[in-house]
Amino acid sequence: VAGEGGARTAPAADQQPASTVIAVDCNGADLGPAEVAAGARIAAEQGTRTILFGPAQQLGEASDAIQIVDAPLSIAKSSDPARAVRASPDSSIVQAARAVGEGRAGALVCAGGTGAALAAGLFNIKRTRGVYRPALALPLPVPGRTVTLLDVGANVEARREHLVQFAFMGAALVRTVFGVPRPRVALLSNGEEDVRGSPLVVEVHGELRRRTSTPIEAFEFVGNLEGHGLMAGAADVVVTDGFTGNVALKLMEGVSQTTLSAVREAAMSSPRARLGGALLRGALRGFREQVDPERQGGAYLLGLRRLGVVPHGRFTRTGFAQAILRAERGAREDLVGHTHEALLAAGALREAPMSAPVASLRARE
Amino acid sequence: VAGEGGARTAPAADQQPASTVIAVDCNGADLGPAEVAAGARIAAEQGTRTILFGPAQQLGEASDAIQIVDAPLSIAKSSDPARAVRASPDSSIVQAARAVGEGRAGALVCAGGTGAALAAGLFNIKRTRGVYRPALALPLPVPGRTVTLLDVGANVEARREHLVQFAFMGAALVRTVFGVPRPRVALLSNGEEDVRGSPLVVEVHGELRRRTSTPIEAFEFVGNLEGHGLMAGAADVVVTDGFTGNVALKLMEGVSQTTLSAVREAAMSSPRARLGGALLRGALRGFREQVDPERQGGAYLLGLRRLGVVPHGRFTRTGFAQAILRAERGAREDLVGHTHEALLAAGALREAPMSAPVASLRARE
Repeated sequence: VAGEGGARTAPAADQQPASTVIAVDCNGADLGPAEVAAGARIAAEQGTRTILFGPAQQLGEASDAIQIVDAPLSIAKSSDPARAVRASPDSSIVQAARAVGEGRAGALVCAGGTGAALAAGLFNIKRTRGVYRPALALPLPVPGRTVTLLDVGANVEARREHLVQFAFMGAALVRTVFGVPRPRVALLSNGEEDVRGSPLVVEVHGELRRRTSTPIEAFEFVGNLEGHGLMAGAADVVVTDGFTGNVALKLMEGVSQTTLSAVREAAMSSPRARLGGALLRGALRGFREQVDPERQGGAYLLGLRRLGVVPHGRFTRTGFAQAILRAERGAREDLVGHTHEALLAAGALREAPMSAPVASLRARE
Repeated sequence: VAGEGGARTAPAADQQPASTVIAVDCNGADLGPAEVAAGARIAAEQGTRTILFGPAQQLGEASDAIQIVDAPLSIAKSSDPARAVRASPDSSIVQAARAVGEGRAGALVCAGGTGAALAAGLFNIKRTRGVYRPALALPLPVPGRTVTLLDVGANVEARREHLVQFAFMGAALVRTVFGVPRPRVALLSNGEEDVRGSPLVVEVHGELRRRTSTPIEAFEFVGNLEGHGLMAGAADVVVTDGFTGNVALKLMEGVSQTTLSAVREAAMSSPRARLGGALLRGALRGFREQVDPERQGGAYLLGLRRLGVVPHGRFTRTGFAQAILRAERGAREDLVGHTHEALLAAGALREAPMSAPVASLRARE
């Protein structure tokens, strides 16, 4: 989806102090823009300021913490988000992304889907200097812990150097936004042995081994991981290409929903089972809360000059509040700056095209 | 794993009437060779004859239906099955595969893992004429139906023509062994729209559309499928490359096990929950039986001159009996012959290297 030609790389905005106001596109939520605005109010109680973009009459009152921009035009349901973004500069997502791109906000939250967020982000926030491709990272609701999988669909194809960068990008997210000091990073593969994997995975494995042969601060590379290891939380960050990641994610969702609805159905199948289900309900609540995707705020759009967070359209205000709070933490902790530093230290930044001063700087290294 | 150079293609044995005796490698089962032999006795009650290869003193008495070959050497736990197969011609799996290759048996059942079955099969049974690559097909225990996913790991890489053949191979399996008259075949992808997918998936999609633009008897091509569609049984056969298929499969297993064990744990967490769990148990039994992998006999090794079935090492005698019965059905219904016919009719057989008579035959078409 996101080709390198999709947007020119903009100079990093790392120099200027980043705003911690969050631009929020309120269109696209299943429960309507008012539910997103309600999430912003929850976040405001914790001191987070937002600019809400959406139909003003549904977004409630503005306040010191909440600025409202009337932007009723939604492209959240578009089947071709990239074209919709180009054709609709007044749409709420484009206005929100522009606010971030122009520095009026420090991060983007978009309830209108990953496709729209990615397209609007590439055109208006632009890629970080030295990053090949943006990636979508999703914290998976694994019982008892968080495992962040990336890329889950920003790109359908990936080369070695893309996946190597994803490792750094994912690790920086998990450090700054989820607070894991030195994340364990793994590659998703069809076997745990170092030699297992597609040719691409074997290549990336070798390169990550080489780059971490002297331990680096950014993360610990723990090798290949399969499904069981992922579900057991054997890594904090799991790297894969966007095709495999997206397929995997949707299968996991499918299995999880099918299993839980089969349990629910069984618990309705007879008076005896119904009683059993009622007695069990309280005990299952803890599990359901642990695996509730709203807790992690949604998917994270990495590799742009500012962080994007894409809560799922079916979230409630709780999830939208989480997305806004996480976005604010990413802006405040300078996720993008930390990612850039780690990539620079590892020599994993994209080298061409280089501007003259950068080239001369590198020549001195 | 299975390169084209791995074994020469042997002439198809389709001409001679196929044996319906099943060669069974009894080594490698978690419960030991005796459990596999017990499975063979269950199959014998339904009229299926077997040759058992394993440590004779653990396999019980021979009978009219059950022949026993003392082959105590096991390579089931080898980390390099291809090398072990070459180095151990007396191992039970190699002897069993040789019995199939030489026509003394009509199909192979191997409890010692897919790697050993694949290596022994490639060297001793050999690929069917015109098939590029063998594939491992796994019937997934989806509630209320069976969805067969292939390739789940015979190859880590796939080209367009391989995946096209997998569609025919999977459809032929599901027709002859599972009894679905005209299977619905889908491609696993990161979106249901025709244009979605990795470049490989898009290419294969186009080719399958083209080959089925005039409806064919072998299967109905239903397009792309994601996780939800797969779990809802929107196709009978789902085609993917061996890397994605293996990753997907293990994630599905991981999620399913994690979810069910969380429910089990919740049902032990308090006296109240324990009572609830006890009352619910009966109702959940139906679900557990529906998704019991032993019901489908295991994974199916396709693309060789004879069918291979690889029950999971943790199966009980019930699962081993199923594997033997399904293998017998595949031999009796001539799965391999039907696959070849469908590939031939579709013009999807491998063209080179051709022998002279085949070339002249093709020239006349």
